[in-house]
Amino acid sequence: MARNTNLRWRLPLTCLLLQVAMVVLFGVFVRYDADADASWRQEKQLRNISSDLENEFYYRYPSFQDVHVMVFVGFGFLMTFLQRYGFGAVGFNFLLAAFGIQWAVLMQGWFHHLDSRRRYILVGIENLINADFCVASVCVAFGAVLGKVSPIQLLIMTLFQVTLFTVNEYILLNLLEVKDAGGSMTIHTFGAYFGLTVTWILYRRNLEQSKQRQRSVYQSDLFAMIGTLFLWLYWPSFNSAVSSHGDAQHRAAINTYCSLAASVLTSVALSSALHKKGKLDMVHIQNATLAGGVGVGTAAEMMLTPYGALIVGFFCGLISTLGFMFLTPFLESRLRIQDTCGIHNLHGIPGILGGIVGAVTATFASPDIYGQQGYPKEVQTSRIQGKFQVFGLLLSLAMALVGGLMVGVILRLPFWGQAADENCFEDEVYWEVPEESSAGHAPEDPTLKPPAVMVSSGSPAFSPVLVS
Amino acid sequence: MARNTNLRWRLPLTCLLLQVAMVVLFGVFVRYDADADASWRQEKQLRNISSDLENEFYYRYPSFQDVHVMVFVGFGFLMTFLQRYGFGAVGFNFLLAAFGIQWAVLMQGWFHHLDSRRRYILVGIENLINADFCVASVCVAFGAVLGKVSPIQLLIMTLFQVTLFTVNEYILLNLLEVKDAGGSMTIHTFGAYFGLTVTWILYRRNLEQSKQRQRSVYQSDLFAMIGTLFLWLYWPSFNSAVSSHGDAQHRAAINTYCSLAASVLTSVALSSALHKKGKLDMVHIQNATLAGGVGVGTAAEMMLTPYGALIVGFFCGLISTLGFMFLTPFLESRLRIQDTCGIHNLHGIPGILGGIVGAVTATFASPDIYGQQGYPKEVQTSRIQGKFQVFGLLLSLAMALVGGLMVGVILRLPFWGQAADENCFEDEVYWEVPEESSAGHAPEDPTLKPPAVMVSSGSPAFSPVLVS
Amino acid sequence: MARNTNLRWRLPLTCLLLQVAMVVLFGVFVRYDADADASWRQEKQLRNISSDLENEFYYRYPSFQDVHVMVFVGFGFLMTFLQRYGFGAVGFNFLLAAFGIQWAVLMQGWFHHLDSRRRYILVGIENLINADFCVASVCVAFGAVLGKVSPIQLLIMTLFQVTLFTVNEYILLNLLEVKDAGGSMTIHTFGAYFGLTVTWILYRRNLEQSKQRQRSVYQSDLFAMIGTLFLWLYWPSFNSAVSSHGDAQHRAAINTYCSLAASVLTSVALSSALHKKGKLDMVHIQNATLAGGVGVGTAAEMMLTPYGALIVGFFCGLISTLGFMFLTPFLESRLRIQDTCGIHNLHGIPGILGGIVGAVTATFASPDIYGQQGYPKEVQTSRIQGKFQVFGLLLSLAMALVGGLMVGVILRLPFWGQAADENCFEDEVYWEVPEESSAGHAPEDPTLKPPAVMVSSGSPAFSPVLVS
Repeated sequence: MARNTNLRWRLPLTCLLLQVAMVVLFGVFVRYDADADASWRQEKQLRNISSDLENEFYYRYPSFQDVHVMVFVGFGFLMTFLQRYGFGAVGFNFLLAAFGIQWAVLMQGWFHHLDSRRRYILVGIENLINADFCVASVCVAFGAVLGKVSPIQLLIMTLFQVTLFTVNEYILLNLLEVKDAGGSMTIHTFGAYFGLTVTWILYRRNLEQSKQRQRSVYQSDLFAMIGTLFLWLYWPSFNSAVSSHGDAQHRAAINTYCSLAASVLTSVALSSALHKKGKLDMVHIQNATLAGGVGVGTAAEMMLTPYGALIVGFFCGLISTLGFMFLTPFLESRLRIQDTCGIHNLHGIPGILGGIVGAVTATFASPDIYGQQGYPKEVQTSRIQGKFQVFGLLLSLAMALVGGLMVGVILRLPFWGQAADENCFEDEVYWEVPEESSAGHAPEDPTLKPPAVMVSSGSPAFSPVLVS
Repeated sequence: MARNTNLRWRLPLTCLLLQVAMVVLFGVFVRYDADADASWRQEKQLRNISSDLENEFYYRYPSFQDVHVMVFVGFGFLMTFLQRYGFGAVGFNFLLAAFGIQWAVLMQGWFHHLDSRRRYILVGIENLINADFCVASVCVAFGAVLGKVSPIQLLIMTLFQVTLFTVNEYILLNLLEVKDAGGSMTIHTFGAYFGLTVTWILYRRNLEQSKQRQRSVYQSDLFAMIGTLFLWLYWPSFNSAVSSHGDAQHRAAINTYCSLAASVLTSVALSSALHKKGKLDMVHIQNATLAGGVGVGTAAEMMLTPYGALIVGFFCGLISTLGFMFLTPFLESRLRIQDTCGIHNLHGIPGILGGIVGAVTATFASPDIYGQQGYPKEVQTSRIQGKFQVFGLLLSLAMALVGGLMVGVILRLPFWGQAADENCFEDEVYWEVPEESSAGHAPEDPTLKPPAVMVSSGSPAFSPVLVS
Repeated sequence: MARNTNLRWRLPLTCLLLQVAMVVLFGVFVRYDADADASWRQEKQLRNISSDLENEFYYRYPSFQDVHVMVFVGFGFLMTFLQRYGFGAVGFNFLLAAFGIQWAVLMQGWFHHLDSRRRYILVGIENLINADFCVASVCVAFGAVLGKVSPIQLLIMTLFQVTLFTVNEYILLNLLEVKDAGGSMTIHTFGAYFGLTVTWILYRRNLEQSKQRQRSVYQSDLFAMIGTLFLWLYWPSFNSAVSSHGDAQHRAAINTYCSLAASVLTSVALSSALHKKGKLDMVHIQNATLAGGVGVGTAAEMMLTPYGALIVGFFCGLISTLGFMFLTPFLESRLRIQDTCGIHNLHGIPGILGGIVGAVTATFASPDIYGQQGYPKEVQTSRIQGKFQVFGLLLSLAMALVGGLMVGVILRLPFWGQAADENCFEDEVYWEVPEESSAGHAPEDPTLKPPAVMVSSGSPAFSPVLVS
């Protein structure tokens, strides 16, 4: 089924339309938060603040930058593991995230200001972090459909997913008053099952025709490690970025640090144990090592204790590696869920686990642990809070499945410029890819013809199915 | 015209001479700022400061580190897009920036202390940021001459450009009292037109002989994306790093974040629209997406409003992509300006645009917007400030052109070790480049001879013109 | 001598055993520090703290993140320079560091709490930084044995080296009351001579059989530059991360910045001067440029003055490059010390130099320089402090040599899964390495057979010695 993948008018119009809409909506709705407004100096006097450092900027900016790096460098490079989809991985992630953060600022702003009844959405550093969080869930879902969708489909998916994310987040955090500092439920569980449902709807029957390109090569695995490491390193910032000032932020960072460290060792252990020659698999090192960060997302700011965090990371690393080994092939062959990056193993199961850990930890919260002041008074009993945490998790799952179904159906429409099955995971479809001059990086010799067959973009396997 | 590119004595002597000069001048002139001096504890008591956090270090250090990463990783890797000039891109950038920051600390220190009449230049975190800013303008200019100059030429260019930058900056910021938080005028406009003038003077008639190496390859484009993303991500820190404490710093970060997001979408839109098959071009994604950061440089800390920032980014992305498509070829073929990285599109035009945006925004500043306290009293009327902003922009342009002319003429002297036209964009000229062992990354087989012709550094196209 | 490199049971059991031990020990011994505990709100009232910003988190978290990046991205990617050991470099570094930080938290906690006689180790942000510091010394030692040891050996080395590091650190900082902010002695000298002793014990007679793989290729040198630059950029954070609040932290960052800048220029100078055609060598740019950070480690927070720091960096760059040129070959051929990354040149000699600089600077400390309050009262005279600094340096050396000897002997045991001499520096031994599909990144042509001989993992040079 040859499709028209020439996006010459469709992609530019989509981008420009969305960006113009953003400009207009920002013009109507968005202004600076008090801490970012020139009126801050009066504000300071009114609120009797003595130091500029009390500006929210100084509490959150370093964490914000780390989260920002995770979304663009972390997710972007993590997905460059495919041998011929590096441009798409890092470039489309860049595109969807740049649009997504704008749309998320608006959506989250509208919902958050439902309560305050202010005229404007007032934007400060915390909004920027929350927008990055929201987009992180889109990046997760992108992992499931990586290599199989067009940039237009990604923009449409971002538009809808950000919307649904915000509704779900609002219900969880504002109505159910659920705790979810690092977003095990709102970001990871939601993002993963949304993406899995979308890729299920977009099932490609003949995907084994691009099987070869679905593998990595040596260099692409190293590029992916850039993504892995920045995700791993900055995850403590992610889980603590919007926690309360002081001890909560501090504790969230420590818990995440512990959990992540543990999941590295258990990922390595299982990766070796599951290989018949005991060799390590880069897929596990790139992904399962991060599962600890997902699993501790909800409970990060709670009094989980450092060893509690280690235990969470321990099991997340194990389960995630097992998932890559056994569950991903099963999902693909039996349930027709083609999950390019294995997000089910990195975000799906650890996300659910994280939600459960959060519910359990909340259930056992008591004034003995948190102190009279630290203990959240508004929640009547810990047990009720624990129940609400479970409701939140189930709701996130339901929203993801229903939302993914709807969005998947929209994305199945045949005119979004998606590639044919045999051209998936291939940058040439949407990118001007430079020709390789010769095998190695040797100085060119004009008297030698380049090895034309190997580098020609007109090789039989690829070109016949392209429609220009 | 074969030239001697053996730098064995010239480069070491230049480096050592410059570094010895730095040591001596630092010894005579540079001491610690009060906030970095052991006397800080007395200082605290005198100034009645209660908390160590009031040390300038805590206000600026995270921003400093981000700016530092931009200069060395951002600019360095952005320029690795050439297939055979990765060592030169990242290595020479490293060299010139390491020298430049030292020289900038001195130059900026002398000028800034003209007023204070202190005996010493007192160095604190803000000096380090300003030194990085100054060097950023050299990195911009480096982009124009990338691959065509020797490291000695780069050190000389750095020496002079830092000097001129500081003079220009002093006139703008201290005499004209122009606002330029993120350096649209002082850094980008100045750096770009300085670099363009230099490359114009250094015009190479037969550069098409190394045309092949002026292209990217798949991996080099991915390396360049590391540079792009870190520049893009940390640009909010760049534009806010030296703004006033509190709301100004906060606002500058938000404005830059918005502007950058918008320019990603418009860059992608035009990149696709300008390709006959609608394919995206990595050059645009690597560069034009950053134009929003340049364009909002001057106005970042002003009350530009978030949607104002989006509009700036919107047009910067558009214009920059158009520039890469139409202006760069025109400049090269008609005006003999060979601009390797297309800095005119990323820093030149967006820089001018940023200067104009700043002038307009300043003109419309009023106590209504800034509040009585926030509104800069020292400036009599906003209109006058707006005029001064325009003067500042024009002066930066003039300084860049005159300075670039002078420095270009110096760099044309034949004994700086520059390569012949046919050896440009080639690391082998100045670097010990490892031989490729074989085509892929296969374990070597000693019974197989390596494909000698392709990897030999003595291949006809390259070696005959080298003089050792 | 064919050895069994199949780690299928040994590696998983080692990892799981260590991780379970960590969980148990954390459960028994580790709790949150007051600043990270829910009781912080009461603590604030008791200590009469007005602002959440006084939480230690805000003083140290940005520095912590930078140090964290250095350990995992910096050291990890710096070691990817080998053409076929990128997975091992970045992956094993990830593994050992993830284990090491947990073990270091415990070890350092026990020693540090010897004094306080508290029941628990209380973990806060400063513990996390110190754990990263400790692991950095293991990463240093890893550089010496890179490519020649199995991951099991690395975990065992980490276990012992962290233990010895902590003992040494305790004696230096707590008993001798030596100053060593950036760890010239405790981290670099100790780590380097420990690693060199281990590699000396593990001498491999026939290592020249894998000589070819001990070289870099073009792309691997660029990956290594990612490591270099992040180490270089964040080194000011490293040296200032645990300094006293305020001026000391500020000063440590400035000194390190200066020293590092100087060592770039002298490294480049000597690299060019020592090559017969004046070409630069990537090994020097990747490593010797960092020597300035090592050399200023002990004295970073002292009143070294900016030009003092420049002088330190000046000589560190020179000596380090000379070391790579002359000392490494000498050590290998005469003393049988096979130092893969040349850690002797980057950490060994500059570390000793740093210790001496610290001793000299401490000797000349006086109330004139530090002020009555800044001057450490507890130390009776500066001269005594200087002497203690020298003792500290000598002790670090002695601990490294004795400890390295013991650990080396343990690692020589034949059942840790180490590879044969001819398979060193080869990822295929411990990693599932993706096959290269074809020479360039060309779309595959199924009608063309891949160049089987070159990519087959069964090539004669490699496979016969593998035991599965």
